[in-house]
Amino acid sequence: MRAQQEALRFPADAVYDFVERVFLRAGIEESSARLTARGLWFASLRGVDSHGLRLIPHYVRAVQGGRINPRPSFRFEQSSPSTGWLDADHGFGHAAGIRAMHLAIDLAGEAGSGHVSVRNSSHCGAMAYFAFEACKEDMIGTAYTHGTPKMRTPNATTTFLGTNPVCLAAPMAAEGPFCYDGATTQISANKIRVYGEQGLELPPLCGADEQGNETRVPEQVVQLLPMGGYKGFGIAMIVDILCGLLSGMPAGDSISDMFNDPLSEKRLLGQFYGALRIDVFEEPERFKARLQDLAERIRRQPRRDPDTPVQVPGDPEKAFQADREANGIPIIERDLAQLDSLAEELGIEPLRRAD
Amino acid sequence: MRAQQEALRFPADAVYDFVERVFLRAGIEESSARLTARGLWFASLRGVDSHGLRLIPHYVRAVQGGRINPRPSFRFEQSSPSTGWLDADHGFGHAAGIRAMHLAIDLAGEAGSGHVSVRNSSHCGAMAYFAFEACKEDMIGTAYTHGTPKMRTPNATTTFLGTNPVCLAAPMAAEGPFCYDGATTQISANKIRVYGEQGLELPPLCGADEQGNETRVPEQVVQLLPMGGYKGFGIAMIVDILCGLLSGMPAGDSISDMFNDPLSEKRLLGQFYGALRIDVFEEPERFKARLQDLAERIRRQPRRDPDTPVQVPGDPEKAFQADREANGIPIIERDLAQLDSLAEELGIEPLRRAD
Repeated sequence: MRAQQEALRFPADAVYDFVERVFLRAGIEESSARLTARGLWFASLRGVDSHGLRLIPHYVRAVQGGRINPRPSFRFEQSSPSTGWLDADHGFGHAAGIRAMHLAIDLAGEAGSGHVSVRNSSHCGAMAYFAFEACKEDMIGTAYTHGTPKMRTPNATTTFLGTNPVCLAAPMAAEGPFCYDGATTQISANKIRVYGEQGLELPPLCGADEQGNETRVPEQVVQLLPMGGYKGFGIAMIVDILCGLLSGMPAGDSISDMFNDPLSEKRLLGQFYGALRIDVFEEPERFKARLQDLAERIRRQPRRDPDTPVQVPGDPEKAFQADREANGIPIIERDLAQLDSLAEELGIEPLRRAD
Repeated sequence: MRAQQEALRFPADAVYDFVERVFLRAGIEESSARLTARGLWFASLRGVDSHGLRLIPHYVRAVQGGRINPRPSFRFEQSSPSTGWLDADHGFGHAAGIRAMHLAIDLAGEAGSGHVSVRNSSHCGAMAYFAFEACKEDMIGTAYTHGTPKMRTPNATTTFLGTNPVCLAAPMAAEGPFCYDGATTQISANKIRVYGEQGLELPPLCGADEQGNETRVPEQVVQLLPMGGYKGFGIAMIVDILCGLLSGMPAGDSISDMFNDPLSEKRLLGQFYGALRIDVFEEPERFKARLQDLAERIRRQPRRDPDTPVQVPGDPEKAFQADREANGIPIIERDLAQLDSLAEELGIEPLRRAD
């Protein structure tokens, strides 16, 4: 479910150019600007609007406020044949993540698998962006981040862990990668907002109010419930072990709040990236053909609702991407107004609609 | 929730001895007998009765029927500095899993991380058994298996993937390891049976009937629903990619049925084990102290139900283990009767109650 507000569509290429111009004009060094622009653009292209263009103004403010370092010096140290850590110097999480994933891929090239822990990082957007890189090399990619404590702990009245997503991507024979990229909460804060905008009641077990009691009224939700109850909580804790504890960064409710804490404060986030060569276990062409076959068998299962497809992870994003590459990326009016005023403030051309 | 049937308790040591004697007398070679006995015993000790002693008769029948090879020749091939695969020769999954995890630990000792794919394997019980081994070496352990197709695919009328569990264990400073070990279905078939025995209605979103429609009547459940809907399904598919596709074994609904297929048929299961050294990322003592602190902060969160503790993964199992080490392992009468007749059939002393 996506925002149903009035939206104008813009050609995908023009959108990318615009985002890169914004970041360059905001004083972000070229590699960080390009990698972050591409990450946001990639999320919006694939329909993950919550992690896409709407974050641009926030990111620029975070640079202006001093939270994000626009000219970081990344430092990598290899710690064993298959592992290492990257100090992101408080730069953009997108740029650090791509660097870290490429390092993990290089390590895997030599050692079979590679794992890179990122420290002193910031928000990095949607994890699929990083995991996809491994698939280009016939590897399985994994990507994890922790974040703002928004998940209500089972049987507690308060939040503690973040929405801590799990992501794994693997190459397929006849289409883009298989990719599961999901928060460990049942639903995202963004989707709850959309329910509210449409005047709808939430499904069960999605959100809780200030006292930690479940509510189905979107406007009352300030805590998110873990997917499947204690199971989602357990997997979110795994993610914080990998991201917060291995990196030496804060963990759990010691993590700062992305939107509510001062933009002068560093986030001090950690991420964890992995690459696993397929050919050290199985012939890659056979693996990709079998994954293709597995997905197609699932899609062919008899449907409960005949009008709704049976899908595998990544199918909705592939459908969005096909539509948006052909017809442009939709931007809702509220977001567009913010981008227009940001362009004006920075003295660059605004995003123009294709005529 | 555990079975509420009448249960007798037996000292933990005596139970282990009994299981080992059963397996040795059934013609299983010593290492396989010992490692499988220990795996079942460990599950029951920790309260995971579904994966414990109740499987003993099934395992013996699977050896007698030719499904499980009681004298396998495991073959390991290292394929890169950090990876390799183990051919389990259709032996017990428990024995192959411990061997594979020890190999992963050895690889990690040299390369920082180690990953071992197991092929030609069989049912391996609860995954915590394997992941714990890594914690003894100050490593993080991961363990995955696929299994009988029992999970209903979102919007399909039928099952396709198994209950495909995810497991990660990490050492803590002042107690046994953190361990998340959970199926990707919302609930296990065993727990559904217990609801039925107690005449209770199921919670929502746990099970479906033969047509794939959700039902809350335990006796009607023949399909299990994924945890958190499509999210649990996505994670289950990740597990099958790691276990079924990397190993070259069958995947999805091509996997045989543990209890309903002939005991002469090999299972052809795959498993995937990983070990990750902590010291290549963080000082291990600091990691363990911080994980301890994280768990204690979570446990201290204000409770919604004041009579129920706030727990982290592994807490319920630790409580069971403390109770059962002190007071013995409870065995319900139905299971005990089966163990008694098995002992008689094999000509060994039955399990005796402590007096």
